[in-house]
Amino acid sequence: MYLYERSKQMKPGVVDASISTDGLLDILSKSEVARLLDTSQSGLYRLFRNCSLAVLNSGSYLDDGKELLERYRSFDIRIVQEERGIKLELVGVPAIAFVDDKMIRGIREHLVAVVRDVLYANEELNRFDLNTREGTTDAVFHFLRNAKVLIPQIPNLVVCWGGHSISRDEYDYTKQVGYQLGLRGMNICTGCGPGAMKGPMKGATIGHSKQRIKNGRYVGISEPGIVAAESPNPIVNELVIMPDIEKRLEAFARTGHGFVVFPGGAGTMEEILYLLGVLLHPDNQPIPFPLVLTAPAGAKDYLQRLDQFIGSTLGREAQNQYEIIVHDPEAVARYLASGMQQVKDFRQETDDAYYFNWLLKIERDFQVPFKPTHDNMRSIDLRSDQPKHMLAAGLRRAFSGIVSGNVKDEGIRAIEQHGHFEIVGDREIMEPVDSLLSSFVKQNRMKLSTEDYQPCYRIIR
Amino acid sequence: MYLYERSKQMKPGVVDASISTDGLLDILSKSEVARLLDTSQSGLYRLFRNCSLAVLNSGSYLDDGKELLERYRSFDIRIVQEERGIKLELVGVPAIAFVDDKMIRGIREHLVAVVRDVLYANEELNRFDLNTREGTTDAVFHFLRNAKVLIPQIPNLVVCWGGHSISRDEYDYTKQVGYQLGLRGMNICTGCGPGAMKGPMKGATIGHSKQRIKNGRYVGISEPGIVAAESPNPIVNELVIMPDIEKRLEAFARTGHGFVVFPGGAGTMEEILYLLGVLLHPDNQPIPFPLVLTAPAGAKDYLQRLDQFIGSTLGREAQNQYEIIVHDPEAVARYLASGMQQVKDFRQETDDAYYFNWLLKIERDFQVPFKPTHDNMRSIDLRSDQPKHMLAAGLRRAFSGIVSGNVKDEGIRAIEQHGHFEIVGDREIMEPVDSLLSSFVKQNRMKLSTEDYQPCYRIIR
Amino acid sequence: MYLYERSKQMKPGVVDASISTDGLLDILSKSEVARLLDTSQSGLYRLFRNCSLAVLNSGSYLDDGKELLERYRSFDIRIVQEERGIKLELVGVPAIAFVDDKMIRGIREHLVAVVRDVLYANEELNRFDLNTREGTTDAVFHFLRNAKVLIPQIPNLVVCWGGHSISRDEYDYTKQVGYQLGLRGMNICTGCGPGAMKGPMKGATIGHSKQRIKNGRYVGISEPGIVAAESPNPIVNELVIMPDIEKRLEAFARTGHGFVVFPGGAGTMEEILYLLGVLLHPDNQPIPFPLVLTAPAGAKDYLQRLDQFIGSTLGREAQNQYEIIVHDPEAVARYLASGMQQVKDFRQETDDAYYFNWLLKIERDFQVPFKPTHDNMRSIDLRSDQPKHMLAAGLRRAFSGIVSGNVKDEGIRAIEQHGHFEIVGDREIMEPVDSLLSSFVKQNRMKLSTEDYQPCYRIIR
Amino acid sequence: MYLYERSKQMKPGVVDASISTDGLLDILSKSEVARLLDTSQSGLYRLFRNCSLAVLNSGSYLDDGKELLERYRSFDIRIVQEERGIKLELVGVPAIAFVDDKMIRGIREHLVAVVRDVLYANEELNRFDLNTREGTTDAVFHFLRNAKVLIPQIPNLVVCWGGHSISRDEYDYTKQVGYQLGLRGMNICTGCGPGAMKGPMKGATIGHSKQRIKNGRYVGISEPGIVAAESPNPIVNELVIMPDIEKRLEAFARTGHGFVVFPGGAGTMEEILYLLGVLLHPDNQPIPFPLVLTAPAGAKDYLQRLDQFIGSTLGREAQNQYEIIVHDPEAVARYLASGMQQVKDFRQETDDAYYFNWLLKIERDFQVPFKPTHDNMRSIDLRSDQPKHMLAAGLRRAFSGIVSGNVKDEGIRAIEQHGHFEIVGDREIMEPVDSLLSSFVKQNRMKLSTEDYQPCYRIIR
Repeated sequence: MYLYERSKQMKPGVVDASISTDGLLDILSKSEVARLLDTSQSGLYRLFRNCSLAVLNSGSYLDDGKELLERYRSFDIRIVQEERGIKLELVGVPAIAFVDDKMIRGIREHLVAVVRDVLYANEELNRFDLNTREGTTDAVFHFLRNAKVLIPQIPNLVVCWGGHSISRDEYDYTKQVGYQLGLRGMNICTGCGPGAMKGPMKGATIGHSKQRIKNGRYVGISEPGIVAAESPNPIVNELVIMPDIEKRLEAFARTGHGFVVFPGGAGTMEEILYLLGVLLHPDNQPIPFPLVLTAPAGAKDYLQRLDQFIGSTLGREAQNQYEIIVHDPEAVARYLASGMQQVKDFRQETDDAYYFNWLLKIERDFQVPFKPTHDNMRSIDLRSDQPKHMLAAGLRRAFSGIVSGNVKDEGIRAIEQHGHFEIVGDREIMEPVDSLLSSFVKQNRMKLSTEDYQPCYRIIR
Repeated sequence: MYLYERSKQMKPGVVDASISTDGLLDILSKSEVARLLDTSQSGLYRLFRNCSLAVLNSGSYLDDGKELLERYRSFDIRIVQEERGIKLELVGVPAIAFVDDKMIRGIREHLVAVVRDVLYANEELNRFDLNTREGTTDAVFHFLRNAKVLIPQIPNLVVCWGGHSISRDEYDYTKQVGYQLGLRGMNICTGCGPGAMKGPMKGATIGHSKQRIKNGRYVGISEPGIVAAESPNPIVNELVIMPDIEKRLEAFARTGHGFVVFPGGAGTMEEILYLLGVLLHPDNQPIPFPLVLTAPAGAKDYLQRLDQFIGSTLGREAQNQYEIIVHDPEAVARYLASGMQQVKDFRQETDDAYYFNWLLKIERDFQVPFKPTHDNMRSIDLRSDQPKHMLAAGLRRAFSGIVSGNVKDEGIRAIEQHGHFEIVGDREIMEPVDSLLSSFVKQNRMKLSTEDYQPCYRIIR
Repeated sequence: MYLYERSKQMKPGVVDASISTDGLLDILSKSEVARLLDTSQSGLYRLFRNCSLAVLNSGSYLDDGKELLERYRSFDIRIVQEERGIKLELVGVPAIAFVDDKMIRGIREHLVAVVRDVLYANEELNRFDLNTREGTTDAVFHFLRNAKVLIPQIPNLVVCWGGHSISRDEYDYTKQVGYQLGLRGMNICTGCGPGAMKGPMKGATIGHSKQRIKNGRYVGISEPGIVAAESPNPIVNELVIMPDIEKRLEAFARTGHGFVVFPGGAGTMEEILYLLGVLLHPDNQPIPFPLVLTAPAGAKDYLQRLDQFIGSTLGREAQNQYEIIVHDPEAVARYLASGMQQVKDFRQETDDAYYFNWLLKIERDFQVPFKPTHDNMRSIDLRSDQPKHMLAAGLRRAFSGIVSGNVKDEGIRAIEQHGHFEIVGDREIMEPVDSLLSSFVKQNRMKLSTEDYQPCYRIIR
Repeated sequence: MYLYERSKQMKPGVVDASISTDGLLDILSKSEVARLLDTSQSGLYRLFRNCSLAVLNSGSYLDDGKELLERYRSFDIRIVQEERGIKLELVGVPAIAFVDDKMIRGIREHLVAVVRDVLYANEELNRFDLNTREGTTDAVFHFLRNAKVLIPQIPNLVVCWGGHSISRDEYDYTKQVGYQLGLRGMNICTGCGPGAMKGPMKGATIGHSKQRIKNGRYVGISEPGIVAAESPNPIVNELVIMPDIEKRLEAFARTGHGFVVFPGGAGTMEEILYLLGVLLHPDNQPIPFPLVLTAPAGAKDYLQRLDQFIGSTLGREAQNQYEIIVHDPEAVARYLASGMQQVKDFRQETDDAYYFNWLLKIERDFQVPFKPTHDNMRSIDLRSDQPKHMLAAGLRRAFSGIVSGNVKDEGIRAIEQHGHFEIVGDREIMEPVDSLLSSFVKQNRMKLSTEDYQPCYRIIR
């Protein structure tokens, strides 16, 4: 007998690799290859490289876009034409993307999705009129269609939102909910990072396996700013990198058939506020839209606090848009299953597509990209005497800015340079905001690193 | 016992139908549907309707685009959005598209291809610079990619050209050649009408069946003018309707790995002349390009006459581009199989794609659409003292015009209105042309109707 | 230009080959391999070798089992165990099984079927009680299940019977009928030789192709005596070699959902008489059993003569079991399609399996193997004063013997040694028999060779 | 807002159900159905019912075969023939087999496996000579082939053994090992109960998902006595119920390409001793046989104690058969991956099948079924002065009896009636045995219930 006991190996470094895309990658034209490799200002190289790096860092949970880019500064990616298609030549790749020198297949597929989406966003999106509601929605539709995410299946896609930085107990709970959803044949869509974005997919994978569902869908919808901070999990088998955060949110809203919100931080708040803002529009009242807030018993307080925040800022009508279910994965799954049935019936009656919620009205306020500069942050209108859905739009922007300051390359740099974002608003609004954010900080929901989170914002009443 | 003996039923009439595209049809956006139904001058309805009618008439061999449109004047097609995708509402459809009230699946797929290609040609092709060689080739590439015809397989696609109006003996021979190709795992691409465009596919279907090849490819490449005269056979499982005749020819040249020419008429001549013109370009000399002219024993004379015509107009160098094989299907198949191997080796060496012959140089002369008006026909330069590949380009246009005058809606109307096309050129060129065309007329190679072909042209020396 | 014109190559000779069965062949145990290679009297080698040779001779139409064995006397086959399964080492194989040195995939599959069925017939059939009606039917069921031919699909399997030696016109007609059946999603089952056993499959292949049916079934049911004379066509994708002729006939009767009879000779008569004999049993009256006799216009006389023969020997009731349709492939297909519907309804009502007609009563008279020795032939009871289904059983045996004397190794040798079979019976029966057989001889329906058929029988009234 | 918080529902009861096997179940003959429903002594009903109940109780971890049968005393199962195949009528089924009134697909498949294996064991196994080494191995081979478990893939099947009653930490570790194996494309085979038999499958499912391996194999090999106590997990997608424990062990040994042993109790010891006994045979020396003992850091002591036990009873040579790896899932996976390569090379060299280790010599001592009666237990030869592999065989039987007394219906009843099993042997052997068993008791490795395990044995030195 030989007692073999290895000390845990060091965080692996970087490797070089040449990756065949054999059939995965849509065949590229010569001009497409040229543009992806174009390092000039107008070229796509930088975006292509950074998104590629992000998906390659999958599994290493580093919620800091700036740190990622700095750590793998020498990373480089080239596209080479070959007789069977395209080969990717990679230099300085995080070794974590490999198992025994072979890149994980799921990650290879993500690289291919990056190529596809970077090209589409920059070549084909131009023909849509992004200054109109219809044009923007059309662009979102075509983007998703090009990514092959629009599938005329019976409604079964559950969008799961929640924090990337959650407790073990909360994480296990997201797995259990995913498992119950998977057992019922439902598919999962998330923002595709760690924590609540990964747990439901893992759970659903086991549920699908027991039901012999081989084409289970694990859809991840990201955008260039967020993907670097929250690398997609390789379970994600349909990755889309939307051009910006607002189109990403619209993609969720129009493709999801049901929505589950787990505990989270600022990013989760951004998502809830977006949805509530949209749902509060009178035109959307008749549309069935199953939405559940859920958490394990230990996070019951969190749910209550969240519910109170919504009540005190957006009112009872907003609270009526969702159900709260504490610690009952089966109940969550059953609630969604019955909601799906209503969605199905409604789409049939109205001849609306299963795969795209055309009827949902999304105002320009929720479509126009918000750039979280210090000026823009300070100018967000957070007065209490405006229509509730306008207020929701404002609050959504505020939380969006905080996410940027927390984890995105651009946001982190802005904070480093100019100090805190300032968020200004009426006392009736700012007090609940302040209190909610403080609780997030206390509960370590803002960043993965457990110690000493330094807020990137200042509340001004 | 009851003796059941039915008199052959009459040519069936027309029926109305509502066709689900269940999953076949790429999901359409609201604006795409709107444009397809737009009957205004700038709308796509007319093109969409006429191409749809053409594929629905499949199997009824009516080589007269004008006649088709007139016979089914009441035909109408509508697109309706439903929860699972798109439904097509059809009025006045040729009953031949149905078997016991169910549309033949292959024809349903062709309808879907029409939608796809009409939209692509009119929405997405605009972003290419069609005034340059590179831009045009890029457009052809993207068009074919969108139609999912570019597949990174080992070279095995054989383009089969030949007449739609051929003898039973010649037709059987095309089946035998197709059978031998199919037995060797090769796939078939044709212009997708009857006769030599259908026989090789039928033969290959049997060959594939014996080899248990379930994903055999039967590619049909057409264009709006020709599709009405030569409806695609339902065996065609990859139909592409290129925007015009020149892009169609470029599509053949860049996707085919080997070429077989059977006996035919003016259309077949157009295709041979295009290819010879391209191949005569010095840059294309090193590129392996297997090309066989073949016919059954009974049409040996035809092959000799064709060879003489090429020799006397384009010279020995043009004759060197092809092999002639008389009455030996196995030899044809083996010749192509070994040619495929050379194509494969060459693409590997040069890192050129298996699925698209990027290296083939196609001059602007062969790309610019030729509109066969009476003026244009008269102005074709057919002098003998020009470079051979220029002459080939001119001859190609002349035959293209004759095809139009014979079978295309537009061409037939032009002839009805203005009389014969006049084709002018040097005597050394016009004599062989005249003699070749006369032999086509005598052999009934110009039109399906056997009697009284009235030439649409006049040769002027 | 180089004029390539090959003289038609000579009938190819024999080759040696080593064939991998990669995944096709059920993994064999060591003892199974040993038995297949056991050349002792009790071993399976001889049967295995002869059946293998038969399927390898596919495509070369040689309806003479004795001639086959003599021509390829040096043929040998070995089984070799390898890490991935089984390899077959072949010596002296007919070259016709290969395309450019690669064995046709369909033929490889047939070899695998031979191994499977030879083993099953000789190892596993022993546990059934073949002396009872139920035990024999159970054996047929298990044999077919082991061959994976029993598939719980909606009724769609059409058994096509008819001669191997038919005219070009008749052959084309069988293709057209197969085409119309294939267009309607029906599958084909035949005795798997040339002529009427091949045409419907070719036609259905094209029909299936147009309907994009990729899992079309082309079932061939043979037995060791017949397979050598009528090699299965490689289109056959489910080959079963039943242990004897009676089990083969029972397999047809229990798995087919509809039956089409084309013109044929003695073998076709054997099949019709078997079926009529079974259907005349009173218990089988309620069972829907679509049966069509059909032929092109040119063979209308043949149908009438056949109908008369049945009328004068088995009476009007027997004539009521079938429909006659002259020269109308679509009508045949529609008739069967509607018959299928009745079969489906009946099976549902009676909870009988779609894939096996359990309810059909087949008497022992039709199950007990008949060995056509001279003595047995002479003893067939063909008196007119017996029940009609008994008479049908007798007539079936008489025709069975004639088939054996015509094409089977054993039968030919018996005739060579002992002279004509003598068939004895009442004048009312023997006269129609004599007249029918004479017409078969005159019309060249007995053997492929056109000249000088020497009858193997003598009619004694 | 409505706060929905359900109290955890009670252990669900029983339900009735009618289950279609649509295509899963091999079509049954009428006589097979009859035998399965035959409740006479010679009939199969009892075995069929009890095994069915066992797989239906999946997920409810009740390691007590007697308790299972008593709890669901009213359970009944009927087979009904229908037009498409077979339907199962169930009465009194554990509700745990259902999700919202639909039976979990994986469990339906297990029911089908029960039918298949009960029939095979009792109909077809009779034709093998189970009194010889070769005959028994042949029977095991045919049993597995009939279950479609023998697949000619490159060696990649890892047998994972270990306890059903393990700590959370140990369970997580088995998942991690499974995950690393799955990432490397390896498949999992276990005894298919909870704990170490489930964890590796769950882990591998996630690994396969990331590598897009859709045909991952999760093989469970059980036998009628054990299946009731350790219901297969629905992830198991290839379930085999071997006729007895010895054939089950031979099935593991001949199909597995690598072996991992996690901490466990008596059952795990039985498995290790079987394998070591086999491997100690001199003929097996040249055969590569990767075998790893592994556990998380917290169970390092367990591994050492086990190693000592083997050393002091079977000696150093036995210890040389395995590797011990502490707390390093990646190292385990890499060790096995490289072992697989050796297995592959060896099989290629020796032309031994990938899917069945024919060359492994398994003596009759390890094949003859051992029935753990009180007499037989007392008579096990555990003297130290016998060949090591004989001693291993004896020890294997002793542990086998303890498993029976712990969890099997029959064993529990025997203990209830006659008191402890007595195990007699030399002091050098019995002391380590006693000490090992005591440690198992102390660590709760004998039964799931944590309190008051009452040993079913007494050690007599």
